[in-house]
Amino acid sequence: VAVLTAAELADIVREMSGGRLDSELRGRRDVKIEAVAPLSSAGPGRLSFLANSRYRGQVVSTRAAAVVLDPRDADELFGDAEPSTTLVACTEPYAWFAYAAQHLAPPSRATSAGVSDGAHVHLEARVDASARVDEFAVVSAGAQVGAGAWIQAGAYVGAGASVGERSRLYPQARLLDDCRVGARCIVHSGVVIGADGFGFAPLDGRWIKIPQTGRVLIGDDVEIGANSTIDRGAMDDTVVEDGVKIDNQVQIGHNCRIGAHTAIAGCVGIAGSTVIGRRCQLGGASMIQGHISICDDVVVSGGTAITHSIAAPGFYSGLFPFMRNRDWERNAALVRHLVELRERLRRLEMRIPEQPTGNGNALKT
Amino acid sequence: VAVLTAAELADIVREMSGGRLDSELRGRRDVKIEAVAPLSSAGPGRLSFLANSRYRGQVVSTRAAAVVLDPRDADELFGDAEPSTTLVACTEPYAWFAYAAQHLAPPSRATSAGVSDGAHVHLEARVDASARVDEFAVVSAGAQVGAGAWIQAGAYVGAGASVGERSRLYPQARLLDDCRVGARCIVHSGVVIGADGFGFAPLDGRWIKIPQTGRVLIGDDVEIGANSTIDRGAMDDTVVEDGVKIDNQVQIGHNCRIGAHTAIAGCVGIAGSTVIGRRCQLGGASMIQGHISICDDVVVSGGTAITHSIAAPGFYSGLFPFMRNRDWERNAALVRHLVELRERLRRLEMRIPEQPTGNGNALKT
Amino acid sequence: VAVLTAAELADIVREMSGGRLDSELRGRRDVKIEAVAPLSSAGPGRLSFLANSRYRGQVVSTRAAAVVLDPRDADELFGDAEPSTTLVACTEPYAWFAYAAQHLAPPSRATSAGVSDGAHVHLEARVDASARVDEFAVVSAGAQVGAGAWIQAGAYVGAGASVGERSRLYPQARLLDDCRVGARCIVHSGVVIGADGFGFAPLDGRWIKIPQTGRVLIGDDVEIGANSTIDRGAMDDTVVEDGVKIDNQVQIGHNCRIGAHTAIAGCVGIAGSTVIGRRCQLGGASMIQGHISICDDVVVSGGTAITHSIAAPGFYSGLFPFMRNRDWERNAALVRHLVELRERLRRLEMRIPEQPTGNGNALKT
Repeated sequence: VAVLTAAELADIVREMSGGRLDSELRGRRDVKIEAVAPLSSAGPGRLSFLANSRYRGQVVSTRAAAVVLDPRDADELFGDAEPSTTLVACTEPYAWFAYAAQHLAPPSRATSAGVSDGAHVHLEARVDASARVDEFAVVSAGAQVGAGAWIQAGAYVGAGASVGERSRLYPQARLLDDCRVGARCIVHSGVVIGADGFGFAPLDGRWIKIPQTGRVLIGDDVEIGANSTIDRGAMDDTVVEDGVKIDNQVQIGHNCRIGAHTAIAGCVGIAGSTVIGRRCQLGGASMIQGHISICDDVVVSGGTAITHSIAAPGFYSGLFPFMRNRDWERNAALVRHLVELRERLRRLEMRIPEQPTGNGNALKT
Repeated sequence: VAVLTAAELADIVREMSGGRLDSELRGRRDVKIEAVAPLSSAGPGRLSFLANSRYRGQVVSTRAAAVVLDPRDADELFGDAEPSTTLVACTEPYAWFAYAAQHLAPPSRATSAGVSDGAHVHLEARVDASARVDEFAVVSAGAQVGAGAWIQAGAYVGAGASVGERSRLYPQARLLDDCRVGARCIVHSGVVIGADGFGFAPLDGRWIKIPQTGRVLIGDDVEIGANSTIDRGAMDDTVVEDGVKIDNQVQIGHNCRIGAHTAIAGCVGIAGSTVIGRRCQLGGASMIQGHISICDDVVVSGGTAITHSIAAPGFYSGLFPFMRNRDWERNAALVRHLVELRERLRRLEMRIPEQPTGNGNALKT
Repeated sequence: VAVLTAAELADIVREMSGGRLDSELRGRRDVKIEAVAPLSSAGPGRLSFLANSRYRGQVVSTRAAAVVLDPRDADELFGDAEPSTTLVACTEPYAWFAYAAQHLAPPSRATSAGVSDGAHVHLEARVDASARVDEFAVVSAGAQVGAGAWIQAGAYVGAGASVGERSRLYPQARLLDDCRVGARCIVHSGVVIGADGFGFAPLDGRWIKIPQTGRVLIGDDVEIGANSTIDRGAMDDTVVEDGVKIDNQVQIGHNCRIGAHTAIAGCVGIAGSTVIGRRCQLGGASMIQGHISICDDVVVSGGTAITHSIAAPGFYSGLFPFMRNRDWERNAALVRHLVELRERLRRLEMRIPEQPTGNGNALKT
């Protein structure tokens, strides 16, 4: 790991972000930065960041060499005074920190190219000379592995499948026949891309399988968390667009389309043939019904079941509030009787005069 | 892939269905069929089907060579007129289509038999000469692999386990010791059959493990989706009967019994010792409590938690409706106060006369 | 398996439990015990147990050689009379049974030590001579495998990772770089320990990855169920303390800490940076929000979403009750209108006199 000054790091982040992230350094510009650490435990040589103005006090007491933060927090804390640590003031402090952290601890890449003796690469597969394939990995007939890609131990690339340049399949990730992963993707251990979708025709109380002959097409810069599954389409393809981020144990059914830059937290299930827009955020363990459509920029709370299409951007929720078990038992029982409660309320409303009494007037004013 | 006429395909489907699926062809009987495609994108040589009368109009505009549909839809669309495309009229159009699709694009089977040099087959295992075992697959001592079965790369067959004839274990599916999979089963990548059930006795704030010494017994014609898990029994066995279809990321606890031809959608969890009847349908992400019993022909909505036994067939649901977050916050808060609301309603009912006013009479009639 | 008398087994259980579990034998002390079985199906040579006083009648009719049960049940059933089967009376019958079952059917351990020719062990890895590593397993550079540990077929131990003594990684369990598993742990097939946490900074509608540089540290005597995932920390570590039991398909996010002896049932999701206390019990498919804290001795019902911190031990629930679909449709629709219902109730309360009528007095007394 290179040791840099804060000023050098600021230049690097500006460059990594394509000039998007400017920052203003306050305090010592030549302080040395070696690694990142949380504000509370950071020591010398460490870069930290202030995620939330509420914890502003920690910036004063931190031993970190430098702290990335919003300019308003910097002003509030030190005004024109000399700060107690180097401040990197940036209107997007978290993104600045992310780039800096990437530079300081780059995601581990294949350190050397080549196919392990212990791997199984089919004669008719095409593996770029700069790619790496580890022991017990399989690259099947007609598959392609792009430049700088890394197929880790036991990962599986099926017949006719392709892995884009600089993408990484962690140990025992599986990309089944004819499916495609774009460039710079990260596919974590245990992922299954391209298993059969769940399609059966009922007949006389039994199920007749519909062959699942579509593919899964994954764009560029997609990350897929451990043990997540994305099914191949029934006839058409399942599509995950560029920049989508998928957490662990997510299930995406056949023929779904996930719009670019959407983020899907852990344990989410999306049933088949559903279309999710761009830049959506699906909270953990949310459940999305099949054959519906969710527009761009929708945020869904964790644990919420989305049972019909959403046409307006916004924040949607639906979760039974938790409580002490004895309170839940009594309140939940009444959920079964809401229709009766409303009926009793209706009858009461009919029994009493429409005109409010004196008290009621107060309400009206 | 063979190229057939519609008439030839109709004969094949009749045969595949054991004579169950008759059809009536209208229009050109000798039109050539090569593959299947969705109604909207199908071109020449393609067979499509009409899933829902609502989309009937697409049959008129489709370029598909032939369309399977219900005779009533055929009548409604063309009556006695010559149809614009060949119609395959059948009272079970989806099942007809499923068989046809299977014939036109048969589920890929092992193209050649034999054990890969890179596989590990124990000397005391028995692999049928017509079976296929791919690289990095393991077949352990005492295990059996039946005729025509296919153990794909990295799949694991434990000691004493058995795989029935023509069954397929996808890459890295795992069948642990002593468990059995019947004939014509499909076990997708990442499945774990036979991990220990979750059984512990509490003692002084710690947990003492109950050895899980039962097996998992899977019937014939079962399909198990990617990364699903079925635990072995504690003392008795966990049983999945014939024809059950299980989607991805489903968890079935120890000592469960799943009745024949039941379908379980993705992300369902079934806790231990629960008995599910025959021909049930469990919606995605539904949760089934342990030690309960669900009778035959029960349908459960996605996301519903079943917390006690069900003795009557039917359709059951229980899902908090989703809404705009601000509406949810206000309404969900009241769920915690339903008991109070009812009490206030009760008190009101006591304060006003039992006899309804004039308006109330209207309600009674 | 050794054949023992009930009296010998009682001595063994006392010893296994460190003297904690005493028992009183009633009936034949020298009856032979070979294995365990459920009360209803047990035959000669079998040890069974009575889990629930409700099934007490089964003790009278069982053919089991011996039955473990609570002394009160023993008294109630036979008083001073000679029992029809040997009774093992113990105030912790289930724990007694668990130890006995462990002795009679010990969890299968590596029967012989050594590294399979088909395994890949890096030259710079350290595998204890008494450990066992099976075919297609990987032990990477700098990794350590302790005494008596068993790395089964296809399991993966990353660079710098360590597996404690007598721990077992089932086939295709994965322990990624630098993560640690303590002593006597059981890691089931398909588990992923140490995949990247889900951390991204938003910037202009895209996501910038935060490198996940922490580790996962697992204590002693931890069990982790099939296909569960535990993410590595972002900067600090994710920690699972001693004696924690985790069922299948559980997801634990980055930087969580799970307190000692907590039990987590199947399909639970715990979002990042959450702290769970000691001896908690999380029911199946419960969902725990990120960045919250749950104190010791909290029990959460299955399917419940915990959306804020819990500071008091106890039993918490929050689950929409299920019902017939048509009833659900009508009642659930009203959940969306609870605020309106309360408003109508308020208005009614204002319209009628504060003083209760005669009936109301009855309520007050």
